[in-house]
Amino acid sequence: MKKTTQLALSVMMSTFPLLGWADEPIQPLQAPKDINQAQAELGKKLYFDPRLSKSGFISCNSCHNLSMGGTDNLKTSIGDHWQQGPINAPTVLNSSLNIAQFWDGRAKDLKAQAGGPIANPKEMAFSHELTIQVLETIPQYVVEFKTVFAKDKITIDEVTQAIAEFEKTLVTPNSRFDRWLTGNKSVLTEQEIAGYQLFKSSGCVACHNGSAVGGNSFQKMGLIEPYQTSNPAEGVKAVTGKDIDRFKFKVPTLRNVELTYPYFHDGEAETLTEAVDVMGRLQVGKQFSADENAKIVAFLKTLTGDQPAILLPILPPSTDKTHRPQPFEK
Amino acid sequence: MKKTTQLALSVMMSTFPLLGWADEPIQPLQAPKDINQAQAELGKKLYFDPRLSKSGFISCNSCHNLSMGGTDNLKTSIGDHWQQGPINAPTVLNSSLNIAQFWDGRAKDLKAQAGGPIANPKEMAFSHELTIQVLETIPQYVVEFKTVFAKDKITIDEVTQAIAEFEKTLVTPNSRFDRWLTGNKSVLTEQEIAGYQLFKSSGCVACHNGSAVGGNSFQKMGLIEPYQTSNPAEGVKAVTGKDIDRFKFKVPTLRNVELTYPYFHDGEAETLTEAVDVMGRLQVGKQFSADENAKIVAFLKTLTGDQPAILLPILPPSTDKTHRPQPFEK
Repeated sequence: MKKTTQLALSVMMSTFPLLGWADEPIQPLQAPKDINQAQAELGKKLYFDPRLSKSGFISCNSCHNLSMGGTDNLKTSIGDHWQQGPINAPTVLNSSLNIAQFWDGRAKDLKAQAGGPIANPKEMAFSHELTIQVLETIPQYVVEFKTVFAKDKITIDEVTQAIAEFEKTLVTPNSRFDRWLTGNKSVLTEQEIAGYQLFKSSGCVACHNGSAVGGNSFQKMGLIEPYQTSNPAEGVKAVTGKDIDRFKFKVPTLRNVELTYPYFHDGEAETLTEAVDVMGRLQVGKQFSADENAKIVAFLKTLTGDQPAILLPILPPSTDKTHRPQPFEK
Repeated sequence: MKKTTQLALSVMMSTFPLLGWADEPIQPLQAPKDINQAQAELGKKLYFDPRLSKSGFISCNSCHNLSMGGTDNLKTSIGDHWQQGPINAPTVLNSSLNIAQFWDGRAKDLKAQAGGPIANPKEMAFSHELTIQVLETIPQYVVEFKTVFAKDKITIDEVTQAIAEFEKTLVTPNSRFDRWLTGNKSVLTEQEIAGYQLFKSSGCVACHNGSAVGGNSFQKMGLIEPYQTSNPAEGVKAVTGKDIDRFKFKVPTLRNVELTYPYFHDGEAETLTEAVDVMGRLQVGKQFSADENAKIVAFLKTLTGDQPAILLPILPPSTDKTHRPQPFEK
């Protein structure tokens, strides 16, 4: 064999895993790139800091719990004074891949999202002004913000930028499905592969595709049959005001879907089996048999990736000047 | 110099740091010994698992937050349905050194304590039975309990044993004060040393002594002057029924006291300055001047040790059979 042929073959061989998924509608997750580590480290502290809430009890991690797939595993979340949230908390994992944030896409990116819950009276019930007061009276935060952003003043802009930068690190590569995609064909069972084939042939991939297996479009909930729910959320209509956008929601990522129960914007599907059944009937007009359903569920569980390894941040203490939490004041 | 004299001198020099604190009323914290690592690792998961609460929202870490000195930094804690707790949450850090657990000492050790909040309707509002149901329907927990305890069934006994074992690891050695105690005399400022001298000469060490700087006795709150509070907690009287035990509380550890604000069993002292002032007047009959108070506060801040490095546990997912949280049901 000529040396050039050998070389070409070797290049082909090493490229093969790439070719393996080039034609697939789902792509492997890539480790996050271009992370500003100093911003992310500061953002991690803020993400875990309940002093960004009125009560001093609720942090970003309360509802997007990184021990639990980046969600709270509740139908809808618990907010300040135990208020019942209006919608299911989407996972923060891989959320940097979303086309926009929130179920109705009202925030264009993670940075725009991060300020929302802090000031939402039904969630953390704080204010951006008090957030700054808290941070500016804690010397270790003041020094860290100055080091990271090289500005004299802390504003909500730096706060949300740091939180978003931390959230960008929360990617879950190396799922069994990704290992299969990139060439390790023995890593999935026959049932799981059959589930993936069904997932493709039934049309699920029309919306759940790309590296996040979703997150990249808005679609109507109840395409073939209407979706029945007592949840008043109207989806994109709440943003555009247009009737045609009623019940259009961001397609959720299916990465780590085994961990992010319950399902749908109203959290009404308690199990993956139920979610696959409802989606089949309402979105692609298929009544999956129990066997088909089990195959798809088996495939979906292969999308659980490596969860981020988080060293719990040690938060700098408040000082005598720091605004105190008001958990029981109305 | 003879060789034997040299040797004797060298032994003396290396022993000197020990001699340095032999006569002090406070001893350095030692790293925890004889930890069953497998139990502690399982206990860490349970400590962070909100599925041990009725709501699925409250874990041990909610009120004994390891990002915040092992407390919630609230006057009294928030329980199920946002109920206001009756008493200030004591720090979990170094709690294995306590003579008993809870402010009134009603639990003899960490294991006896751990089951309390889970089943307390004002705290996690769950039950031991449901705790076992949750754990037994999660295969990864079942396997881990079996590996760790070599028993076929999970009972509350193993649950509390594992949590207690994890809590035993939560020791904070290497504070500046401990480094000073063990011989590094340049690590404290003159003000801090003066504060320590005042702390001793004023009688504070009568109760706040030992390696935890407290935690080893019950004392009456309001010894010289009565303590005024609207908090109904009666202290040890609630356990013994004896009038003489009214307002006797466990002396809290002062380790990491800079992080564990607000202070006292009712959380009514917001700052260290206030706590030192009240303690001075009520317990040792001294009205500290502003300068004296500042010195003692400076000393107290040297008791902040190395916080435990906790890798956030990744919790195994519930299955279709797992009892679901009921956050909004009464």
